[in-house]
Amino acid sequence: MEPSASEPTLCGKSAGQVMAEITRFHGFPAPGVMIGAFMVDWAQEWIGRKTEADAIVETRRCLPDAVQILTPCTLGNGWLRVLDWDRFALTLYDRVDRRGVRVWLDAGKAAAFPEVQGWFLKHIAKRELPLDVLLKTIVEARRAVLSCREVVVTDFLRRPKKQSVGICPGCGEAFDPRAGDRCRGCCQGAYFEYR
Amino acid sequence: MEPSASEPTLCGKSAGQVMAEITRFHGFPAPGVMIGAFMVDWAQEWIGRKTEADAIVETRRCLPDAVQILTPCTLGNGWLRVLDWDRFALTLYDRVDRRGVRVWLDAGKAAAFPEVQGWFLKHIAKRELPLDVLLKTIVEARRAVLSCREVVVTDFLRRPKKQSVGICPGCGEAFDPRAGDRCRGCCQGAYFEYR
Repeated sequence: MEPSASEPTLCGKSAGQVMAEITRFHGFPAPGVMIGAFMVDWAQEWIGRKTEADAIVETRRCLPDAVQILTPCTLGNGWLRVLDWDRFALTLYDRVDRRGVRVWLDAGKAAAFPEVQGWFLKHIAKRELPLDVLLKTIVEARRAVLSCREVVVTDFLRRPKKQSVGICPGCGEAFDPRAGDRCRGCCQGAYFEYR
Repeated sequence: MEPSASEPTLCGKSAGQVMAEITRFHGFPAPGVMIGAFMVDWAQEWIGRKTEADAIVETRRCLPDAVQILTPCTLGNGWLRVLDWDRFALTLYDRVDRRGVRVWLDAGKAAAFPEVQGWFLKHIAKRELPLDVLLKTIVEARRAVLSCREVVVTDFLRRPKKQSVGICPGCGEAFDPRAGDRCRGCCQGAYFEYR
């Protein structure tokens, strides 16, 4: 279905289609993932939709799912790298020349859309801001709440493939010997107790 | 379509359906994601398919995508936690009582399936092990290459929700003030240079 003239397209899909995909994958139409969709769309347009891009996301909240829904990059295939920095920003870049763009939700620009700013800076309590009102404002705002700049990526590039596999003397499980004598799990301590 | 009697079901889907979903999301029918699908299926069966489970995965390679494809847990919605420990293991657990199961690809058991063991321990070069042969063996092996134990999760539980948002004096972007005076991005150094 062609999106109507008044409805924005995001990576070639209508906003409604994107919201349905967010609901299916993320569990509900999260405002953060929807803003992330506009961020991915802008970044893709800037670097060229045909560029095979890797992605770096600067928060674990919401944004990784926008990238995983709208690009070929997933956490498991290694094309998406997630930094736990709590900054609402992402970078798409060409893995060959490391050039790309960084897009972020700009708190200053969001002032023109009080619902978006109030949600982003937690100035408005959830119960006072109905989800449908917030989502409508996000779709109206489109890129007006975002900033975008060209970058060259210098770190967190895709790491080299594993060369060999060892058996950890601590837990008896397979691990990457580049970690040292024991696996990182044994070095850092378990997060579980066997029952 | 009902899966045939000879074809295993994974989380209520046929192996063929699961492989198609892996291809769509991950980019190709990766052996690691397919083994991950059997791991998720076993863990879900053990804790009960109706339990609202959180997930912890002990490697960034492949396994996070099996969880994201077959459960409601995604990185962006916070129900999936990914540890960069390079151990091919995952835990599904009830977020209320923290009880669950840990499932891992067992290098010892894999000896009965030389293709799986050769791939897992990198004893067989990729060019000498056709993908379709490996995938066929993985589907034949099912749970015979896996181990599973009940656990209580003691760490890496879901973190508390953000309480407030500040503006970082370093970069001017929004951040979680629990990080300190400046955001983690400013503390750790940028991974990019603006052009």
